[in-house]
Amino acid sequence: MSVVQMVKIVGLGAVALTLSVEWLGWLFCRLWPRKISRGPLKEVFFFPTEVACTERLFTPDSPFPCPCPLPHNVNTSFTRLLGHILSASSSLDLCVFAFTNLDLSRAVLALHARGIPIRILTDMDYTLITGSQIGAIRRAGICVRCDSGAVHMHHKFAVVDGRRLITGSLNWTLTAIQSNKENILVTEEPDLVLPFITEFQRLWDVNDPARRHLPSIAEKTASLVL
Amino acid sequence: MSVVQMVKIVGLGAVALTLSVEWLGWLFCRLWPRKISRGPLKEVFFFPTEVACTERLFTPDSPFPCPCPLPHNVNTSFTRLLGHILSASSSLDLCVFAFTNLDLSRAVLALHARGIPIRILTDMDYTLITGSQIGAIRRAGICVRCDSGAVHMHHKFAVVDGRRLITGSLNWTLTAIQSNKENILVTEEPDLVLPFITEFQRLWDVNDPARRHLPSIAEKTASLVL
Repeated sequence: MSVVQMVKIVGLGAVALTLSVEWLGWLFCRLWPRKISRGPLKEVFFFPTEVACTERLFTPDSPFPCPCPLPHNVNTSFTRLLGHILSASSSLDLCVFAFTNLDLSRAVLALHARGIPIRILTDMDYTLITGSQIGAIRRAGICVRCDSGAVHMHHKFAVVDGRRLITGSLNWTLTAIQSNKENILVTEEPDLVLPFITEFQRLWDVNDPARRHLPSIAEKTASLVL
Repeated sequence: MSVVQMVKIVGLGAVALTLSVEWLGWLFCRLWPRKISRGPLKEVFFFPTEVACTERLFTPDSPFPCPCPLPHNVNTSFTRLLGHILSASSSLDLCVFAFTNLDLSRAVLALHARGIPIRILTDMDYTLITGSQIGAIRRAGICVRCDSGAVHMHHKFAVVDGRRLITGSLNWTLTAIQSNKENILVTEEPDLVLPFITEFQRLWDVNDPARRHLPSIAEKTASLVL
């Protein structure tokens, strides 16, 4: 076989392979559109959600069924939110205005017990509301910083494992989850997640208590001069 | 030229074309990654934002510069938000808890003056707060429905032209824009936009005043029996 013939055969083989892969991909997409991953995770939940037992999310390996009277094994907006929080395996950064929900507090404490690093940024005024979980979370040894500005730290977002963003209108309160009309958007789209990671770090640094309480050299000099 | 030779030449041409397109695409992505569109629009803005003149957004064709003392031609989180709202060309569906911001109200009224269909869904209690723009918007003839439930309609999202979602923690108030720490996420990702369109329609239907005030046949029968 001559070199020219060999080149021709290889060329035709390449055409056949390329076209087959393209066409098979197109055919697969048409036949089973749901089975094809459409890029990074994207989910939206709306609230209020129906009330359901969340015990299986906290103790998935328990051999005993939960005896509580709430519906079991029900997939609600809240169980999905809780599932995303509990899925954290390397970090949880939470930036939330109001935090009174006991199940979400339990989820944060469970992650802390697993040794997962957690940082919580919240509004100073709203740590004082009835039922705030910030005290209990601090007592457990989780690092919390408060924004004590004259205005509100009104964010309601979390970043799980530095790649999954949970954001929306929902504060981490029982009223928000069981009564209000609210939304939550969950995504791993880097273009959406990265700005939130950067903003969290900026707010975390700005609200460092060491930075706030230690006077700068300029301030010290001014006080000496006065 | 024989048929076999013709097939071979066409085959080799197809290989060359396919590989060239694939490789040129890959090369272009490597050399100018920012110039390649990475799927649907995805943007994130944070607040508070610096105060800047927004006049050019409302009167882009005006030959006269705005005489106000605010900084001009500055791109802020708020001018970008306003730009997205004013970009509406076929519809605006707005679902917002509190609406007192004058610039955003002006934007909504400007769209209405252009003949763009607008639907606004808001919380009944928050239409009564000082500076609420809902009265002015209603008087202009824009269709507004209020959620009058015992709990809050706490959403803060808009859908522009049925394809661009604007959502986040930000209420449409001056405090939220100029003072609070807030976020806004803008996307045209269908998997994120479509659930919000469906939820808007659901809430719009639920809060139809005709549906609320007209008793059902069952209610009428019950009242007759009683």
